[in-house]
Amino acid sequence: MSPTDQLTVQPCSTAISAKLAALRSLLTAHRLDGYMVPAADEHLNEYLPAAKQRRVWVSGFSGSAGDLLVGQDNAWLFVDSRYYEQADLEVDPALIQVSKLGLEGQKTLEETLKTLGQTARQTNGRFRLGFDPFTITISQFRSFQKQLGPSGVTLVPLAENLVDHVRRQQPWVTAEPLPAYADSRLFSRSDAQTGETVEQKLKRVRSALQKANADILPLTKLDQIAWLYNLRGWDVPYNPVFIAYAIVAPESAYLFTNLERIEPDLQALLQPQVTLLPYEHYAETLKALVAQPQHQRVLIDLKHTTMGTHELLTDPAAAIACQIVEASNPIEGMKARKNATEVAQMQAANLKASRAKTRTLKWIADQRATGHAITEADVAATVERFYAEEADFQGLSFNTIAGAGANSSIVHYGTPNPQRVLNPGEFLLLDSGAQYASGTTDDTRTLVIGDPTPEQVECYTEVLKAHINCAMQRFPKGTTGAQLDGITRSTLWFAGLDYGHGTGHGVGAFLNVHEGPNGISKRVSEPLEPGMVTSIEPGFYKSGWGGIRIENLYIVKSLTPKDDKPDAATKPDPNKIEWYGFESLTYIPFDQRLIDRDRLDARQREWLQQYNAAIVEKLSPTLSPAEVEWLQAVCTL
Amino acid sequence: MSPTDQLTVQPCSTAISAKLAALRSLLTAHRLDGYMVPAADEHLNEYLPAAKQRRVWVSGFSGSAGDLLVGQDNAWLFVDSRYYEQADLEVDPALIQVSKLGLEGQKTLEETLKTLGQTARQTNGRFRLGFDPFTITISQFRSFQKQLGPSGVTLVPLAENLVDHVRRQQPWVTAEPLPAYADSRLFSRSDAQTGETVEQKLKRVRSALQKANADILPLTKLDQIAWLYNLRGWDVPYNPVFIAYAIVAPESAYLFTNLERIEPDLQALLQPQVTLLPYEHYAETLKALVAQPQHQRVLIDLKHTTMGTHELLTDPAAAIACQIVEASNPIEGMKARKNATEVAQMQAANLKASRAKTRTLKWIADQRATGHAITEADVAATVERFYAEEADFQGLSFNTIAGAGANSSIVHYGTPNPQRVLNPGEFLLLDSGAQYASGTTDDTRTLVIGDPTPEQVECYTEVLKAHINCAMQRFPKGTTGAQLDGITRSTLWFAGLDYGHGTGHGVGAFLNVHEGPNGISKRVSEPLEPGMVTSIEPGFYKSGWGGIRIENLYIVKSLTPKDDKPDAATKPDPNKIEWYGFESLTYIPFDQRLIDRDRLDARQREWLQQYNAAIVEKLSPTLSPAEVEWLQAVCTL
Repeated sequence: MSPTDQLTVQPCSTAISAKLAALRSLLTAHRLDGYMVPAADEHLNEYLPAAKQRRVWVSGFSGSAGDLLVGQDNAWLFVDSRYYEQADLEVDPALIQVSKLGLEGQKTLEETLKTLGQTARQTNGRFRLGFDPFTITISQFRSFQKQLGPSGVTLVPLAENLVDHVRRQQPWVTAEPLPAYADSRLFSRSDAQTGETVEQKLKRVRSALQKANADILPLTKLDQIAWLYNLRGWDVPYNPVFIAYAIVAPESAYLFTNLERIEPDLQALLQPQVTLLPYEHYAETLKALVAQPQHQRVLIDLKHTTMGTHELLTDPAAAIACQIVEASNPIEGMKARKNATEVAQMQAANLKASRAKTRTLKWIADQRATGHAITEADVAATVERFYAEEADFQGLSFNTIAGAGANSSIVHYGTPNPQRVLNPGEFLLLDSGAQYASGTTDDTRTLVIGDPTPEQVECYTEVLKAHINCAMQRFPKGTTGAQLDGITRSTLWFAGLDYGHGTGHGVGAFLNVHEGPNGISKRVSEPLEPGMVTSIEPGFYKSGWGGIRIENLYIVKSLTPKDDKPDAATKPDPNKIEWYGFESLTYIPFDQRLIDRDRLDARQREWLQQYNAAIVEKLSPTLSPAEVEWLQAVCTL
Repeated sequence: MSPTDQLTVQPCSTAISAKLAALRSLLTAHRLDGYMVPAADEHLNEYLPAAKQRRVWVSGFSGSAGDLLVGQDNAWLFVDSRYYEQADLEVDPALIQVSKLGLEGQKTLEETLKTLGQTARQTNGRFRLGFDPFTITISQFRSFQKQLGPSGVTLVPLAENLVDHVRRQQPWVTAEPLPAYADSRLFSRSDAQTGETVEQKLKRVRSALQKANADILPLTKLDQIAWLYNLRGWDVPYNPVFIAYAIVAPESAYLFTNLERIEPDLQALLQPQVTLLPYEHYAETLKALVAQPQHQRVLIDLKHTTMGTHELLTDPAAAIACQIVEASNPIEGMKARKNATEVAQMQAANLKASRAKTRTLKWIADQRATGHAITEADVAATVERFYAEEADFQGLSFNTIAGAGANSSIVHYGTPNPQRVLNPGEFLLLDSGAQYASGTTDDTRTLVIGDPTPEQVECYTEVLKAHINCAMQRFPKGTTGAQLDGITRSTLWFAGLDYGHGTGHGVGAFLNVHEGPNGISKRVSEPLEPGMVTSIEPGFYKSGWGGIRIENLYIVKSLTPKDDKPDAATKPDPNKIEWYGFESLTYIPFDQRLIDRDRLDARQREWLQQYNAAIVEKLSPTLSPAEVEWLQAVCTL
């Protein structure tokens, strides 16, 4: 599941007040009525480098999501339910008004801006909203324009980021100097890890561009660039990526990044395929490329490109006559469909993480058996220690969620508490993942400390049924994430239960733990294709009572006839349907004390038996005899 | 299900050749390389008035879907799988090349145009494509522009429809005079039928416009206009609508139609709310309205408005300074959510249709029992006769589909054959519906003549399970059609079966048998809301073998606590979820010989028993004793 940030010490209100005042004086200078500071940076990262955490710096709020709007007299922070408490802790309401999205009477950013625009219209004016065009996507810009334009808001993109401007002023430039940016060492991935060379990838991308009637592809998102060039770095937390732009052209390919951190060997390796240029050369190179008469068609993915790049291409001053082809970035689909090498690597990585998590479960059982009190923080530290003991460990794939009792109902509980002891009768929800050189992992187990109540058993079993129903579903080519989401929830709904998040997200191959275009939720119309990796993670949460989530990663496989039920061959199959199914990457026991076997139907029981047998088969060879004995016991229903 | 057209006699190739030649000379005059003749008309109708069947007239192809492209040397007709055979029958391949969409190597309209554009680019030219902007939606236009612009195609909207121009020339203006247009009598719906006056509807629409920051709403689609003004007519087949435009403004509302067919009483009734103007005054009135300084914001739904209306609003010559607010037309959602009166009316209409279809099933059984040979056409005529015997019958809601044996696998088989006798061992698929003054109906039953094979029983039972799984699902507020589509198909997929069409479509209240925005298919992200009517119609089709479809209409109901399972009250419901479910409008027995009870689970059996009991309870009071006796027998499993 998507993790959240660590809570930080509340910055001094006086400091925030001074920063806001400095920003407001820039508003006046630019004749603006407000300035928008989105959570995103120039590369639309989920995890931002410290140097680009502008909203954190100017507001004091450190959550991973939430946009800030600063007006001359007021300021607003817009947070979703994950961050209600954190925002109250970190933000001084005298300086910034927290809008809790989803609660009665709380306005969204758009609604607030509409009101401001309408107020301005009453005096025949407009509300002039400044923003950095490199911090919003083209889609977001158009949506703002469409929604806010008629309401009296004028969008004013500014070349300079005003928060950065403030940060370069005194006293901050001295007192809070900008952190280093883009200086982690880059490292390359071998063909044995990626299964496809940079040359082969560039060939596929160029062929896709040609099919889309485009010549040039500018890349903004870091995981797309890392995938394309078989490179990784650690410029941001959790995601093994590095700050860069890239451009693919018919005869050339470019990487724009801090070149000082690329070692000569790696430079030599890349140079036959890729022109290496400093990060700052992106804009001028793009403009020069598209100005060539034979390179006039630029593929732009509205959701993966910032308005800043769009402005480079449409700048009337530069008199560029290029043509923008609005289409999906072909790299997204290529990256999502793992090749055989990547699949094998992901299997290896997830087996390591499964072993680490399984050992953690045994460790918890052992501590409980010997009467040791353990805390949420102990559990988090233990699973992280077991992750790190596995070969090729690179780091966590997100911050570990270890929530006990009522904390387990907080979907993104990211602050395991060293004071919070696990008590009998409580749930423990442990959602964690690691980055190995072979791949990325993410899984969740929920267990009960001591004896469960009938309600805990009933709800857990219903969530497990939902998980199994999705995991064992066979489905035809073309099936979308939204259809599978319904299939997952069907039996839960009959039990009167539901969960407020999606059922699954894509996962990268030693890349981001959240990636598109596939996913399982009512919003996803993308079909699931062989080679795609997805989480399946239904849940149930009740504030104060606790929460349940059961998450494995799966790979989508084509079901060849031999995998089919024997009698399927005799069935009518008029349209020669291609059938797909899921194969688990995760092998971790469920808490058998929480499973009411009588609530499972025959197919669900069969799936569970086979899954339990597979856990024992996959993990036993590398476990100690005592571990194997314990594992066999907990995998017997 | 969506019906198709009757096959017509193949027009003489010479006549088509002459029409194409006349059209091509107009292409030359307008310096065009091609002209697009879409299946749609100015009101984006599914069923077109004869006067606007331009593609039929110029190509000879009479199918309800399929666009025509006429170039200087070639012409192409693009048809989907429903029309492969019909296109071969009706179109001379020497004159028009039929592109069968979905078959290997067959190009779509867009792909064909891309190729033409790329060919033109090779000689540094562009392919100039003419079309009537009133025959495509704004969405379609933008999609064309986005896809075809970079491929060398220039879109050239022409004020005059070139096919109409040809039709007004000799010899056609004399030999094939344009049919009468928009001359059916208009009739109004009483408050007892609609549950909401025109005044109330206008108030709701104006309030929605205000919320969307818009002043003016132009209406293009006939069912939206019919709903808003509580009026009906019979200008097109099957849909009780009339050719008109409408505009809602803050202080005024307009109806533009042939006023001669509105009787004085009705004119007097409408005039307090609605300004009545001739159809031809639409364009100038819209321009004049938006030119007023206080009415500058026009709500445009890109999918329900033609590019023609968009051009009226953006005409630089007219120097209109209006602002276009792109948003969903609020009438779509209002029309879809039936009020209590409409629900009661729809229940009454569908009970009539259920009785007529049930009587047809008994009639078939009686004919078979007495050894009479009956044909597809006999069955169609019989159900239509029983429909017409019910009070307030207005006509069919689409053309009756009665397919025997292999014909039952043709999803839109619209030509019941008077020679085709029903033989033992064959399926009969009967998909039909009627328009009553109270409402619109649509249902499908599949039965077997004589004794079924085990495969027929297995497949039928699997389709029935899919139907029941959807029909009995309870689901939370916000659930989309795509989620329910997955739930419907889940068990079918386990059996290795699937169907190529959606699971359900919205149905109007004495309006179109197909209406949006709701539906059940992987493409529908619209949530199902109380008051919406939907079909549930899973199927299975195997060419040559036959087809199965089981269709009822349902209304979405809010499940108040008393409708819930008694134990649901004790379940944790942290988020106070609002639960919805389906209530059937259709009460017609299934063919019990085709049901393998052992394949149903306990919940499915319970649903079926309750449904069978409801059929007997609802229909018996108005049936003869012999009919009741038969009904009770076929409703016992």
